[in-house]
Amino acid sequence: MVSVISRGFKKFVNMSKSALIILAPGAEEMEFIIAADVLRRAGIKVTVGGLNGSEPVKCSRDVHILPDIELSKVAADKFDVVVLPGGLGGSNAMGDSPVVGDILKAHEDGGKLIAAICAAPTVLAKHGIATGKSLTSYPSMKEQLVDKYSYVEGELVVQDGNLITSRGPGTAYDFALKIAEELVGKAKAQEVAKGLLVAYN
Amino acid sequence: MVSVISRGFKKFVNMSKSALIILAPGAEEMEFIIAADVLRRAGIKVTVGGLNGSEPVKCSRDVHILPDIELSKVAADKFDVVVLPGGLGGSNAMGDSPVVGDILKAHEDGGKLIAAICAAPTVLAKHGIATGKSLTSYPSMKEQLVDKYSYVEGELVVQDGNLITSRGPGTAYDFALKIAEELVGKAKAQEVAKGLLVAYN
Repeated sequence: MVSVISRGFKKFVNMSKSALIILAPGAEEMEFIIAADVLRRAGIKVTVGGLNGSEPVKCSRDVHILPDIELSKVAADKFDVVVLPGGLGGSNAMGDSPVVGDILKAHEDGGKLIAAICAAPTVLAKHGIATGKSLTSYPSMKEQLVDKYSYVEGELVVQDGNLITSRGPGTAYDFALKIAEELVGKAKAQEVAKGLLVAYN
Repeated sequence: MVSVISRGFKKFVNMSKSALIILAPGAEEMEFIIAADVLRRAGIKVTVGGLNGSEPVKCSRDVHILPDIELSKVAADKFDVVVLPGGLGGSNAMGDSPVVGDILKAHEDGGKLIAAICAAPTVLAKHGIATGKSLTSYPSMKEQLVDKYSYVEGELVVQDGNLITSRGPGTAYDFALKIAEELVGKAKAQEVAKGLLVAYN
């Protein structure tokens, strides 16, 4: 029986990691789907929670996607990461939602990862999450964030403790791979990136 | 009344361009959605044709997407481009479909654009489309293509006349932007790329 394993190995063994991705009407469908697909490729159990129910969600460029479950039926603190895709309409809806606020607070209190891209860091601001931390966003969202956060420009992905943020569709692979790296390790993230034909170091 | 316009301008005036994207079970959802989203951002009218009907399609990483219409109800030669996303299951299904074969032949005969990414160039081979042309694909598909085509490695996107091909999820933005460039011009493709935070020259 092997009882001594290295710390680096132990960290990612028994890796039934889980992610909740919130899907709201007006979500940026590329940012949503890159997160869902990349995390599933990394072996993470992904649940797609529909903000307004379990019916198909009309995204920002009129693609209709079916959530796995109605968001209000999800246990608020159950996941290793909560992921917020961007899109202006989707972000505004998540910012107005008490259910989203409760989920984010439960994950912040539990020391779990929270990840937001593009316009979605404004959702954190509206719910008072991760105040004071370093983050980034879609460039035009900066003005809504500079008062509450230490705003970073010129980086594709910014991590400050349990908060991971990123900028837009063109940085969505890096964003998703960084989340995967945090949950299941760099080697697995790099393996996934290789299959995607994406450079990730 | 202005009757003299430059050739470059004329080419893209009255630009009601249209695209058919075929969505089959097992499609790579990132490759599908990046094409749909980017082409719509470029002002191209996109129709998502469901290979097996108009019900939600289960993609390669279990995201369920609603097509706009059942593929068999689409006029075979109506579009300026037919786009085939990759994904092994989706490509195998498209390769086995006489409806897909008819649509591709009608577009080839009409001198319209055909675009395929990742595993989807094998669909062209199965239906005898664009034989002899230069193309690329997901690296592991090469062996199925070298006999019928002039296979290109080391390029993100390959264009040979009316055929545009590309390699995988990591090249999907370049693929979609190249299709947009062909249909609505380089300036518009670059404008879309800028909004995506994607480099495109």
